[in-house]
Amino acid sequence: MYFASDNSGPVHPQVLDALARANDGYQMAYGADTVMNDVRDKIRGLFEAPGAAVYLVATGTAANSLALATLSEPWQTIFCSPRSHIHEDECNAPEFYSGAKLTLVPGDEKMTPQALRQSIAGEETRGVHGPQRGPVSITQVTERGTIYSLDELRALCTVAKDYNLPVHLDGARFTNAMVALGCTPAEMTWKAGVDAVSFGGTKNGLMGVEAVVFFDESKAWEFELRRKRGAHLFSKHRYLSAQMDAYLTDDLWLTSARQANANCARLAEGLRAAGAHFLHEPQANMIFASFPRGVHKALHQAGAVYHLWGATLEGEDDEEMLACRLVCDWSISNEQIDVFLALL
Amino acid sequence: MYFASDNSGPVHPQVLDALARANDGYQMAYGADTVMNDVRDKIRGLFEAPGAAVYLVATGTAANSLALATLSEPWQTIFCSPRSHIHEDECNAPEFYSGAKLTLVPGDEKMTPQALRQSIAGEETRGVHGPQRGPVSITQVTERGTIYSLDELRALCTVAKDYNLPVHLDGARFTNAMVALGCTPAEMTWKAGVDAVSFGGTKNGLMGVEAVVFFDESKAWEFELRRKRGAHLFSKHRYLSAQMDAYLTDDLWLTSARQANANCARLAEGLRAAGAHFLHEPQANMIFASFPRGVHKALHQAGAVYHLWGATLEGEDDEEMLACRLVCDWSISNEQIDVFLALL
Amino acid sequence: MYFASDNSGPVHPQVLDALARANDGYQMAYGADTVMNDVRDKIRGLFEAPGAAVYLVATGTAANSLALATLSEPWQTIFCSPRSHIHEDECNAPEFYSGAKLTLVPGDEKMTPQALRQSIAGEETRGVHGPQRGPVSITQVTERGTIYSLDELRALCTVAKDYNLPVHLDGARFTNAMVALGCTPAEMTWKAGVDAVSFGGTKNGLMGVEAVVFFDESKAWEFELRRKRGAHLFSKHRYLSAQMDAYLTDDLWLTSARQANANCARLAEGLRAAGAHFLHEPQANMIFASFPRGVHKALHQAGAVYHLWGATLEGEDDEEMLACRLVCDWSISNEQIDVFLALL
Amino acid sequence: MYFASDNSGPVHPQVLDALARANDGYQMAYGADTVMNDVRDKIRGLFEAPGAAVYLVATGTAANSLALATLSEPWQTIFCSPRSHIHEDECNAPEFYSGAKLTLVPGDEKMTPQALRQSIAGEETRGVHGPQRGPVSITQVTERGTIYSLDELRALCTVAKDYNLPVHLDGARFTNAMVALGCTPAEMTWKAGVDAVSFGGTKNGLMGVEAVVFFDESKAWEFELRRKRGAHLFSKHRYLSAQMDAYLTDDLWLTSARQANANCARLAEGLRAAGAHFLHEPQANMIFASFPRGVHKALHQAGAVYHLWGATLEGEDDEEMLACRLVCDWSISNEQIDVFLALL
Repeated sequence: MYFASDNSGPVHPQVLDALARANDGYQMAYGADTVMNDVRDKIRGLFEAPGAAVYLVATGTAANSLALATLSEPWQTIFCSPRSHIHEDECNAPEFYSGAKLTLVPGDEKMTPQALRQSIAGEETRGVHGPQRGPVSITQVTERGTIYSLDELRALCTVAKDYNLPVHLDGARFTNAMVALGCTPAEMTWKAGVDAVSFGGTKNGLMGVEAVVFFDESKAWEFELRRKRGAHLFSKHRYLSAQMDAYLTDDLWLTSARQANANCARLAEGLRAAGAHFLHEPQANMIFASFPRGVHKALHQAGAVYHLWGATLEGEDDEEMLACRLVCDWSISNEQIDVFLALL
Repeated sequence: MYFASDNSGPVHPQVLDALARANDGYQMAYGADTVMNDVRDKIRGLFEAPGAAVYLVATGTAANSLALATLSEPWQTIFCSPRSHIHEDECNAPEFYSGAKLTLVPGDEKMTPQALRQSIAGEETRGVHGPQRGPVSITQVTERGTIYSLDELRALCTVAKDYNLPVHLDGARFTNAMVALGCTPAEMTWKAGVDAVSFGGTKNGLMGVEAVVFFDESKAWEFELRRKRGAHLFSKHRYLSAQMDAYLTDDLWLTSARQANANCARLAEGLRAAGAHFLHEPQANMIFASFPRGVHKALHQAGAVYHLWGATLEGEDDEEMLACRLVCDWSISNEQIDVFLALL
Repeated sequence: MYFASDNSGPVHPQVLDALARANDGYQMAYGADTVMNDVRDKIRGLFEAPGAAVYLVATGTAANSLALATLSEPWQTIFCSPRSHIHEDECNAPEFYSGAKLTLVPGDEKMTPQALRQSIAGEETRGVHGPQRGPVSITQVTERGTIYSLDELRALCTVAKDYNLPVHLDGARFTNAMVALGCTPAEMTWKAGVDAVSFGGTKNGLMGVEAVVFFDESKAWEFELRRKRGAHLFSKHRYLSAQMDAYLTDDLWLTSARQANANCARLAEGLRAAGAHFLHEPQANMIFASFPRGVHKALHQAGAVYHLWGATLEGEDDEEMLACRLVCDWSISNEQIDVFLALL
Repeated sequence: MYFASDNSGPVHPQVLDALARANDGYQMAYGADTVMNDVRDKIRGLFEAPGAAVYLVATGTAANSLALATLSEPWQTIFCSPRSHIHEDECNAPEFYSGAKLTLVPGDEKMTPQALRQSIAGEETRGVHGPQRGPVSITQVTERGTIYSLDELRALCTVAKDYNLPVHLDGARFTNAMVALGCTPAEMTWKAGVDAVSFGGTKNGLMGVEAVVFFDESKAWEFELRRKRGAHLFSKHRYLSAQMDAYLTDDLWLTSARQANANCARLAEGLRAAGAHFLHEPQANMIFASFPRGVHKALHQAGAVYHLWGATLEGEDDEEMLACRLVCDWSISNEQIDVFLALL
């Protein structure tokens, strides 16, 4: 009963197998391995973007920070949600890499086009004194488990384009969103107006690989230099390539994401039936729900692992509603979920 | 016949096995995995440093840059060899992370205590105008395949201590040096005066793991924040831990390094017998040697892979001596070496 | 009728005289001039802080950025008002110098202790993932012309001290606030809990000098290195010293600030009589007021110079109320004010 | 007898007069003052560069650092002399502003085209691993008081252009060099191949103003943002403008530089007659000479102020030759020089 995060489960067996297969003989280092050519081709194909620049790094924070640094200048500000990972969970890495600051677009889990437009307009009148407008960064799946519809994505990108600003998509849970929307990678990115995407794999069964994809190839060399300067270029790069290759083979990325979402739906259904309150409507593989402290205590005692959300287990009042975050990856079994639900 | 680099060979099978074993069930992310506790204990034990701060990152450039940033201030200069990896091969990453600049201590593959003292003294008289003296960074094995004796290490550290400067050891090939010297990890580090070490694993059979060890624990929290801010904290950290754990189990680190050095010795012996000229005396697992262009051509034609050094294969004069770099890791077979030598 | 800013008026004649007096013979450069000794002594005396570290720079942005960089670490966040100069008007300079980010404490022109405490507490639970808590920066006079009472200052500093955070005071209009409060420099700074202050002179009659004062001398050398590394150490430093010396001689700083505040009060009184609406209660030398477009048009036609505030003169509706900012320095004459008021 | 530096003498009276004249009424802040328009026009005219971008800052380190940052990228290296001010005397400011590192072109006071070409070529073969080639920075007058001929300048720029690299001229003593060469500003800059120049005023009679001139206007807006972000944009900018305007009026810049050079020549002639040894041939306003310790002692006792160069006055051997640096600005009188010489 481990719902703490989608980075605490095991790596998918097909990925381990791919690592073993990759472990044969000699390969050029630093991204010149032959598997990387396949990966590049596959990603370009899946995104219907034959000219895209495709790179691999090992952490989501690296993907986001390097992508944003490449899209921005150090005298700019990046527009994002106050709930975004780049603001709350990356210990100033985006600022370190880009030199830019972040402007928090008011709102909760999602940015609205109205709020975005108002934030961008608000940076308008100060000439050289204020920071200049920089990229817009959108998180899909949001950090609260909700999903922007394609219409919502397009509307946000339209606002950015009205001000001639590039758009970055933090897709740490890209595939979870995509299969939920039933759309193509292209529809969720460049067709909507996205310029660069952090295409996550780690939270969906890989050991530690994220792709960064630029639909405009002109930033490619700058990205390569930024990656090396950030110490994120792997010498034994073939083992990043092999993971991503396995991910995109036999629909592993899709089946894993579908399984994670299905696991989450099963859990959510049970919670709903048990009377839990949902802080946000779960649309991908994360649930933010509240139920009585007494139930939390019973779950913890039974060995369930997950994070309370702005609350602590300690307390007298067993009726008090406490919020928590529950995350499912592909590896959670129906049994685990059902045991958990039985304890509610 | 692949002598291009010790980062182009396969991962040791015991490491892959360890990854498979680690791939069981759930683990806390971001370094809170249980295997990391073992790794920390093992490294503290091997280094006879019970209070050492121990961290894992995935690239050697990250290890060096984060260690140096933690030991320095942005208005300082770091003393190193003009041949050091931090100067020549990290695309400004040490400067990016630390803000400091590098002072190149004149000399070739090794720093001498005299040259180091003169360089440090040379930064003396400019008060606030010049950069302030910062850490000394020593590369062991050097980038030219030679090894500092313990006396030489101690002498360099003594110079640093005379000026109250911390010492960093870039140990990308730490174990190759250690087994060649027949000394303990402690002797090659804190007993000699080293304050922090990049303890490499990637070039010696791991997939991508380097430990950073601080013998003074007081810098531990700063390092953790710098690692996260640099996007080098892995969520699925257990797979870094598992690699390092396998490395330190059943003497894998030692046997791999001994094998790499022995492979190199066999190759060097054959080269010497064939009349090759050595630019540096090979003491670990790297050879810098020159022999006629015609021989290089024959080797390339036969499929040998290695880097020419400041030279190009193209040219009329088949008698001209061309330098090359030949690197052996643990995986090179005697057969490969002997076929190579037979072509000389 | 020039109310655009307190940086658009002339330098006080006594300051020009002091520059002429300083222009005699030779002086050591880079802050080793003899006048700087007097300045340091005077500031230490006025602030009742015999051990204070005192430095001069030429711009307010340099004073703020260098002070904050010295008080913070690059993995921290600085707490400030969304209206603060460091956030809105310094083009990422504080971030550039410190590496830290800014956390905007919700509220309008002033921070409240409650909002500050909530913001600080909000950065609590993310360990290494979120930025760490850094300095609190308070602007006195605020960017909206209001003044923190000593009680308010103490309450904010108490919150900071509860979390062991240093406090910076952006005192670009320090003296305007001080004479309005009728307090001493010490009361408005270290006695209230302030650790470092940007003690402004430029907006109060100097050509371009701000002092940075640290009440804890231990940061002195770091500041000196940061100042030089930021290119803010003047070679002909005596001309900064001479300005600050004149400022603190014969109460020039006090009389100039009193005159500016009095000019502002006269203007505010007239505006109030004419029915203007005040966005903020003017307490120092700045007014944020609104009155009909038609009046603005008449004033502009008559040559009055000032900034409309989130509004444009163009428009049909002459009855529409438009906001503006009116700033008085010491040099504004009663005649200018009265001509302006007559046009209302 | 003050020969310590050309930043320790007084400001030229015409500059003080200009400040007094500028101190009249109100002016837009931040470079929008009317005098700046005149300055821009004058500099464009003098440099025969009608499209040049012209900016003022207050320190030479700011001029150099901001110019180099605008010409480079943070993954590049800047080629310069090991004697250059940007390397030895700016406490990492160029690295702080640009993110780039410095490559020291071997040689003494001047760079030779051969050494420059070799240094640039040496950064060739490392792809993404080493820093990329960035700007060449030339110091004219050199830090050793010598001057590049126009042929030498052109040859250096030709090397840079062969590699498509921009050229920066650190002209802290620009006019001293120009009047010595008897050339025009254009000949010493863009006609030779220079892309941006730090056009110094402070060492030649101003209080603290340097112009930065880009001959390609396309970098203008980036420079403005970098200047503000570096906290080097002055609010009361008119007082920078007024200094530079006075400098360029009635040939003040030329007459001051000629006087400084003539003072230096008179001093050098006397030293030569007295048997002093010259470390470098004095060609502008600086002398590096050695003479016996006993003479230094006598001079110091008589109140002469100057810096010994790599030597200390203390010592028994009064016959020992000690080097020193002697700098003349426009303000040094013949009497001072002759009294000094009489003591030799």
